Amino acid sequence: MKAGVIGAGRIGKIHIDNLLRMPQVEVHAVSDLYADEALEQWANERGIPVVTRNSSDVMNDTEIDVVFICSSTDTHVPLILEAAKAGKHIFCEKPVSMDITQTIKAIEAVKEAGIKLQIGFNRRFDHNFKYVRDTVQAGKIGDPHIIKITSRDPNPPHEDYIQVSGGIFMDMMIHDFDMARFLAGCNIEEVYAQGNVLIDPVFAAYGDIDTAISTLRFENGAIGVIDNSRKAVYGYDQRVEVFGSGGSVTVANDFPNTAEISNAEGIYREKPLNFFLERYQEAYLVETKQFIECIDKGLDIPVSGSDALQAELAALAAKWSYTQKRPVKISEVLEQLSITK
Amino acid sequence: MKAGVIGAGRIGKIHIDNLLRMPQVEVHAVSDLYADEALEQWANERGIPVVTRNSSDVMNDTEIDVVFICSSTDTHVPLILEAAKAGKHIFCEKPVSMDITQTIKAIEAVKEAGIKLQIGFNRRFDHNFKYVRDTVQAGKIGDPHIIKITSRDPNPPHEDYIQVSGGIFMDMMIHDFDMARFLAGCNIEEVYAQGNVLIDPVFAAYGDIDTAISTLRFENGAIGVIDNSRKAVYGYDQRVEVFGSGGSVTVANDFPNTAEISNAEGIYREKPLNFFLERYQEAYLVETKQFIECIDKGLDIPVSGSDALQAELAALAAKWSYTQKRPVKISEVLEQLSITK
Amino acid sequence: MKAGVIGAGRIGKIHIDNLLRMPQVEVHAVSDLYADEALEQWANERGIPVVTRNSSDVMNDTEIDVVFICSSTDTHVPLILEAAKAGKHIFCEKPVSMDITQTIKAIEAVKEAGIKLQIGFNRRFDHNFKYVRDTVQAGKIGDPHIIKITSRDPNPPHEDYIQVSGGIFMDMMIHDFDMARFLAGCNIEEVYAQGNVLIDPVFAAYGDIDTAISTLRFENGAIGVIDNSRKAVYGYDQRVEVFGSGGSVTVANDFPNTAEISNAEGIYREKPLNFFLERYQEAYLVETKQFIECIDKGLDIPVSGSDALQAELAALAAKWSYTQKRPVKISEVLEQLSITK
Amino acid sequence: MKAGVIGAGRIGKIHIDNLLRMPQVEVHAVSDLYADEALEQWANERGIPVVTRNSSDVMNDTEIDVVFICSSTDTHVPLILEAAKAGKHIFCEKPVSMDITQTIKAIEAVKEAGIKLQIGFNRRFDHNFKYVRDTVQAGKIGDPHIIKITSRDPNPPHEDYIQVSGGIFMDMMIHDFDMARFLAGCNIEEVYAQGNVLIDPVFAAYGDIDTAISTLRFENGAIGVIDNSRKAVYGYDQRVEVFGSGGSVTVANDFPNTAEISNAEGIYREKPLNFFLERYQEAYLVETKQFIECIDKGLDIPVSGSDALQAELAALAAKWSYTQKRPVKISEVLEQLSITK
Repeated sequence: MKAGVIGAGRIGKIHIDNLLRMPQVEVHAVSDLYADEALEQWANERGIPVVTRNSSDVMNDTEIDVVFICSSTDTHVPLILEAAKAGKHIFCEKPVSMDITQTIKAIEAVKEAGIKLQIGFNRRFDHNFKYVRDTVQAGKIGDPHIIKITSRDPNPPHEDYIQVSGGIFMDMMIHDFDMARFLAGCNIEEVYAQGNVLIDPVFAAYGDIDTAISTLRFENGAIGVIDNSRKAVYGYDQRVEVFGSGGSVTVANDFPNTAEISNAEGIYREKPLNFFLERYQEAYLVETKQFIECIDKGLDIPVSGSDALQAELAALAAKWSYTQKRPVKISEVLEQLSITK
Repeated sequence: MKAGVIGAGRIGKIHIDNLLRMPQVEVHAVSDLYADEALEQWANERGIPVVTRNSSDVMNDTEIDVVFICSSTDTHVPLILEAAKAGKHIFCEKPVSMDITQTIKAIEAVKEAGIKLQIGFNRRFDHNFKYVRDTVQAGKIGDPHIIKITSRDPNPPHEDYIQVSGGIFMDMMIHDFDMARFLAGCNIEEVYAQGNVLIDPVFAAYGDIDTAISTLRFENGAIGVIDNSRKAVYGYDQRVEVFGSGGSVTVANDFPNTAEISNAEGIYREKPLNFFLERYQEAYLVETKQFIECIDKGLDIPVSGSDALQAELAALAAKWSYTQKRPVKISEVLEQLSITK
Repeated sequence: MKAGVIGAGRIGKIHIDNLLRMPQVEVHAVSDLYADEALEQWANERGIPVVTRNSSDVMNDTEIDVVFICSSTDTHVPLILEAAKAGKHIFCEKPVSMDITQTIKAIEAVKEAGIKLQIGFNRRFDHNFKYVRDTVQAGKIGDPHIIKITSRDPNPPHEDYIQVSGGIFMDMMIHDFDMARFLAGCNIEEVYAQGNVLIDPVFAAYGDIDTAISTLRFENGAIGVIDNSRKAVYGYDQRVEVFGSGGSVTVANDFPNTAEISNAEGIYREKPLNFFLERYQEAYLVETKQFIECIDKGLDIPVSGSDALQAELAALAAKWSYTQKRPVKISEVLEQLSITK
Repeated sequence: MKAGVIGAGRIGKIHIDNLLRMPQVEVHAVSDLYADEALEQWANERGIPVVTRNSSDVMNDTEIDVVFICSSTDTHVPLILEAAKAGKHIFCEKPVSMDITQTIKAIEAVKEAGIKLQIGFNRRFDHNFKYVRDTVQAGKIGDPHIIKITSRDPNPPHEDYIQVSGGIFMDMMIHDFDMARFLAGCNIEEVYAQGNVLIDPVFAAYGDIDTAISTLRFENGAIGVIDNSRKAVYGYDQRVEVFGSGGSVTVANDFPNTAEISNAEGIYREKPLNFFLERYQEAYLVETKQFIECIDKGLDIPVSGSDALQAELAALAAKWSYTQKRPVKISEVLEQLSITK
């Protein structure tokens, strides 16, 4: 199988290095708007023959079976449409689009083309969260009643990024909306979002917030809550809890070691793994492995376009809820957008 | 100092046994609507001279300096008014009243009489929560941004009690509203409550729910969330987290021991302390000690009538929010009740 | 039941306050070589009628049924003999004697008199250690293979005490030898002790050491290890582990609260409970309760004179082992002392 | 740099896969006494040109700069001598030899040849143990007083292996003797070993034991203890603690995830990572990386032949101690073997 990667930023490079560890795959081409000598050398060291600034060179290359779309969000849908037309399988980073009708268009194109599309909700492949999901699915905590997700970044993004991020709900909490659905085993029905600018006024300047809590209601009657902060000084904070009729399952953060130092001041341990690149290193590898295997063996994709759509709907509902200061139903979002589910 | 206790149920007896451990206090009388031989013997063993069915016997006893009101909620305000008139200091169990205007009336009577009134928000005296509060107050986690409270009972109350409890917000979450204010160091401004009947349909029969999440907004701009369940099969679950600009502080449950058993199946430890009588045993002692000391030394009471009022307002806002499916501001509750703050 | 307490130091006072919480017991007399006005007032506040400098006043008081021997170690055996003669039940602090033949003499006198003697190995009643013992006894970890005990003090004793303490093995590790037997469910067969002066040269001045490790062999074939330090800067460190064919059980230290503070430096929690008075507060109460109950109901005493003897033999073996730089069998100690077991 | 690997068992294959991840190295040849088609295919998939049954093919290949000796222990010294002669750098698995005089011979040959020799004490590169060592070296716990190592296997080896293993001290505890030196920052001076056959009588049949405790005395005056078991039903148990004048540092086991499940029976988590291949996966990678880097940059090797010698001396002292039932000094072992240090 030959792969082409569009977008050679941080995340594109991670996917390439992971693909290189899979014997079934050959990374054939990489495209990036800003491809330069440094990228060429980087690709060369990895034995990647084609480096280009033009994503069409990847799309038109008939040797390529599968494309990884790791470019900016606004390019996702056009590239998906192009790849679907070219009959290539697609791995696309989240979100598919800020515009839900575009997301739907992309999903339909994929369906028609009969190709496979996997969305980069990498956290589903994390050893901790996967275990929580399996525990819930196995009925070990009974029926889920309350789902709680804590998700905090160690540092806010740069102002440049804040400007185009789509806001905390579409950029950051979208991961947690997907995780909530993943853990609950059903869709979100309603969202109420509360939040504030407590870390940096720059967020307010772009109509965004930096601290948020969303209350969720799921289709199965369970309720949930997600809290987000753009800045946890103690590092990347990623924990979940599912509480049910038969008990609960929780996962704590991952740490660089298990050491505890005891001295006259108290007991001390290091901060958790500091950023998503460290925390989810293994998850990135596993998601790509499973994607490649699903193509190889003709299996169902673990995170579909429809999963992307549902997370985007929840993020939009949260955005409306925060702005309009009221709970918002997903069904209302669908109606407003004149989408027949 | 001589004390009289009104209401000799579970909680009244706890207060009596704690008072007996304080050298400054003599428990002089206990009244209970259902006082019988068993209670007389119980009181006798403890050297309590007066046992009566009539609370007026306590109120009219001029030897008594301080009364503990541990009878049913509907009797709290009349008894406070009576005690205030009699010039006795008052310790009253929570809530003061289901009717907020009555609570205000009681607070005013106490103020006029110049006596001391402490409310039984015992959790403020718990070693864990006290430490969180102190950590926050000392500025160790910077400005509070997010406050999270988990509070779950091991078992639902009996149907008889559900009928008169006032509902999950006024009966159970009221403790957590007070804790939220205690930890945030300021008042709650707005509440949004989501919930469901997931444990037992009997709750629905009385217009109540058994599982609830409330999102809070505090006057200082921080946001928060409380989750409640009437049934955690693994025992009493009481945890809090305060996250701020400089870090976070969390407290976990208390356990009967620190033992871990490792075997071929995994690592196992016992459930947390099973109910509030065990978990808050020490907190009950400390709250009474401080109350007695404040009277003794003429100090300010640690939990005032105004604290009770604020928690009741939040509980009422939550109730309205849940029923009307929208966020409710405390200021709106005050307006609706024609209360000038 | 009327109790007399001999020795009103720290430990004597703890026993008195615990006895005062038991309805079956009246504390009738307290004797102390240095009894003064302060002690009289202290006793007066507690309603103890007799305060004396002469222990015979306690021994000869026919109203007294049970005596607590909390005076210095050298007085234990004479007082046990006296109490046995007077037909009083005895609670005696550890060790019974530095001289094992004296300990045997005391045990025999108690046996002849048909009274009850309990030794103050309070740690057996600690919630953690008790749970480990119960877990082992219930067969939950199979046959014990390895027993590990960590026991470290927060601070060395004063020089005055070091001089008369009997050395680290008889004064400090004796508790751990008893714990080892308690957890293994059988006697120690052989001891090898290694150690050094690493904290304060004052220990060397009295032929003592401040840091020690003893390797144990038990009669059931299990092996074990105890480590002691006179100074753990992070507080009182008391942990055990029993490892067996079916798994292991460990207990960690007790902490003042469950709080964890996370900040830019790491995760921090407070030191463990700082000294034996805090850590074993509950254990002291439970041991006295059980002693009183055993007398009341004619039950077998939980920690007998024979338990004291076995711990003393192990301590002596450790002392010889350290001095002679070789493993020493308990049977050899018995032979050398011409004791027929 | 071109590498040749001698011995393509489990450990040899791990080294090959790790070498393949390093850009500076090309794996040029692999030899194994039992090389077959399966190995050829395995090597082929990895692009290794030479597969042979004859280790001399590796030794005589002038293209090869560095050899990894992963064959059986009895071949280590002859192969080291051969490699030294051929001027190749050497990575050799532990122990160098069961015969200490042979180990010394090998070390001298390496010294004369001026090549680099690293010993496979992989645990020194484990994230946990490395952190403990760094903490101690940085003076964060003051002067080390007590060093404690727990090291237990999940399952005993097969009888075939027991027969040739060299016994628990030379085969298993040798890792811990090296760790003890690594953590203490100095050599072991004296060992006393206690042990028993508690798991399987097959050990006794070969004059071996399955459960052991060694007490250590270090040259800096610190004391220590290692406990080993051939069978911990709950998995691979690898923990250490260094206690010193300024505090202590401990590391616990690594777990597959951080999940805790709470239900009506208690709190449960999974067993630790089950075997050394999982637990030390990263450590194997790091040790090889550092070895290659040291050669590349002409730096000192992190684990030298002298480290191997010291661990072997301690293991031999433990063996003698266990057999002769007395503490044994390293200096005595050296004397008996007529080694001038």
